[in-house]
Amino acid sequence: MSIKDFAPELTTLMAAFEEQLREVVRSEVEFIRLIEEDLVTAGGKRVRPRLVFLSSNALGGVPHAMELALAVELLHSASLLHDDLVDDAETRRGKEAAFRKYGNAVSVLSGDYLLSRLMALLAQTGRMELVAMFAEVARELSEAEVLQFQVAALGEHSLENYERIIDGKTASVMRVACEGAAVLGQAPFHLREALARFGRLYGQAFQMRDDYLDLMGSPEALGKPAGGDVREGKVTLITLWLLERHPEEVGAILKRKAREPEDIPRLRTLAVESGVAQQVEAAIAARVEAALGALRLLPASSARDELEALALGERVRLR
Amino acid sequence: MSIKDFAPELTTLMAAFEEQLREVVRSEVEFIRLIEEDLVTAGGKRVRPRLVFLSSNALGGVPHAMELALAVELLHSASLLHDDLVDDAETRRGKEAAFRKYGNAVSVLSGDYLLSRLMALLAQTGRMELVAMFAEVARELSEAEVLQFQVAALGEHSLENYERIIDGKTASVMRVACEGAAVLGQAPFHLREALARFGRLYGQAFQMRDDYLDLMGSPEALGKPAGGDVREGKVTLITLWLLERHPEEVGAILKRKAREPEDIPRLRTLAVESGVAQQVEAAIAARVEAALGALRLLPASSARDELEALALGERVRLR
Repeated sequence: MSIKDFAPELTTLMAAFEEQLREVVRSEVEFIRLIEEDLVTAGGKRVRPRLVFLSSNALGGVPHAMELALAVELLHSASLLHDDLVDDAETRRGKEAAFRKYGNAVSVLSGDYLLSRLMALLAQTGRMELVAMFAEVARELSEAEVLQFQVAALGEHSLENYERIIDGKTASVMRVACEGAAVLGQAPFHLREALARFGRLYGQAFQMRDDYLDLMGSPEALGKPAGGDVREGKVTLITLWLLERHPEEVGAILKRKAREPEDIPRLRTLAVESGVAQQVEAAIAARVEAALGALRLLPASSARDELEALALGERVRLR
Repeated sequence: MSIKDFAPELTTLMAAFEEQLREVVRSEVEFIRLIEEDLVTAGGKRVRPRLVFLSSNALGGVPHAMELALAVELLHSASLLHDDLVDDAETRRGKEAAFRKYGNAVSVLSGDYLLSRLMALLAQTGRMELVAMFAEVARELSEAEVLQFQVAALGEHSLENYERIIDGKTASVMRVACEGAAVLGQAPFHLREALARFGRLYGQAFQMRDDYLDLMGSPEALGKPAGGDVREGKVTLITLWLLERHPEEVGAILKRKAREPEDIPRLRTLAVESGVAQQVEAAIAARVEAALGALRLLPASSARDELEALALGERVRLR
C-alpha cells in the first residue's frame, strides 16, 4: 500500500467531495432542495475543503478528512445563507442571492438544515474534540457577524473591531479546516500548532484581500460594482486607514454611504495617492509571509507546496 | 447518600437551570446580549428542561442532565429566533417579537450563537450518541419549519403534512428531552423506548393543543387575538377537518386568510356546531392517553407522577 492510498491527489478528493456534498444536503422537502441545489451547483472555490485535504495530505493522510471537509463547507454555506439577510447582497457567487428567490425564511431555515448535517458529520468522525472545536468556531463566527452589524449600526469603527471581525468570520473557519485535520490525524502538538497558525493567518490574508478588492478591484473581476462594503456601512482596513489620513473628506463619504456617484472613484484615487492602498497590500503580504513561516514547520511534501501556493495567491498588487 | 443527591426536587433543578442558562448564553457582543437577555428574562414555561429533569429523576438521576436541559431549551430558543421571520408573529411569549426590536439579522445570528452554545454543551456530556441524536432532531425541526412554509405557499394542506410538521417542530424536541436522559443514564432499552414514546406523544398533544387554542381559545388566555394561524395561511387539524365538512364556506375563509371581521367567529361557531372541536379534543386526549400508557412502563416514582400530571394538563375542553 503506497502513501497515495492514504493521501490521494487533490483533484480526486475534490471530485469525490462534490459528489458527497450533493448526497449530504439532499432533503425530502422541496423548498430546501431548491436552496441547496443552488448552493451546490453555484460551486464557489471550495477553499475550505481544499485546506482540509491539503492539510490531511501534508500529514500523510488522516481518517475522516472527507467528513471534516464537508463540515467546514457546510458551516460556510450556512453562514452565507444567514448572512444574506444582513448583507442585502446584490449578488452572491455571481448568482442572485438565495433569499431574493425564495424569501428570507426559507434561506434561514435551510441554513439550519445544513447546520444539522454538519453535526451529523462531526458525530461520524467519533472525535468529541472536533465537536467542541466547531462549537467554538460557530460561536466566534456568529459573534463576529453580529459585531459587524453592531459596528455598522453604532459607528464603532476601529482596527481592533476590524480584526475581531475578520478573525471570527473567516480566519476561525480556515483555522479549524487545517487544525481539524491535525486533530483527526492525532498529529504531534507542534504540527497541530503549525497548521492552526497557518489556517488562521491564511484566513486573515484571504479576508483582507477580499475587503481590499471590494473597493479597489475592477467591477469585471469582482462581478459586481466596486465599493459595496462602503455602501453597506461596513468599514474595512482600507477605509479605516483612509479615514485616519483624510478624516473630513472620507468621513463625509462614509457617513453618506457613498451615495454620490463620484464617491467610490474618489476613495480609490485617494487610496492610491495617499499610499494607503500600498499599505494594505503590504499588510496582506505580511500575513502571507507569516503563514508561510508556519508552513515551514511541516515536513516537505507536494501538499505543503500546494498550501504555500494557495497562500501566495492571496497577495495582491493592483498597479 | 440518599436518592435525593442524585435526583433533587424539580424546583431546585429549575432554579439552577435559570442561573446556568444566564451563564451559558452570555456573550461579549452587546447586540447578542440584548437579544439573549430578552429570551432569558422572558422566561416561558421551560417545558423542555422540565421534561429532561423529570425523565432523569424517573430513572433515579442521570449524569449531565443539566447540560441536556440547557441544550434542548437552546434548540427551542434558537428555533423561535429563526422562526420569527417566518411567523411575522405579533407577539412572542407576551413580548414584542425580538426581530421587531433589533432587526431580523441580529435575531438570526443570535440564534446561531445559541446553536453554538448547544454544541458546546453536548460536547461536555462526552456522549457522541447524543450529538448524533441532536443532529437528527435539528434536521427534523428545520425540515418541518420549511415544510410548513412550503405547505402554506403552495396550498399543500393534508393530514399527512400536518402530522409531519408537528412531529418535526415539536414532538422531536420533546422526544430528545426525554430519550436523551435515558441515553445519558445508559438506561435499559425498554425504559429508553418508553421515554422516547412518551416524549413524542406528549409533544404531539402539546402542539395539537396549541394549534387548537390558537383558533378556539379566548384572546385573554392567549394574550393575542384568536385565529393567528388562519391569518398566516397555516392550516392545522381543526381547520383541516372543518374544510372537509364545509369545503366551500371554510375554503373561502382560508383563501382570504380570514380578512373579513366575521371570519374567525364564524369558524369558531362552525367548529362547535359541526362537532369538529370535540373531535380535535378527542384526538388530543387520545395522544395523552397513549403517552400515559408509555409512562406506565417506568417504575413508579414521584417524577413519573409529575410527568403524568404534565401530560394530563394538555387535555383541553372548552365548553
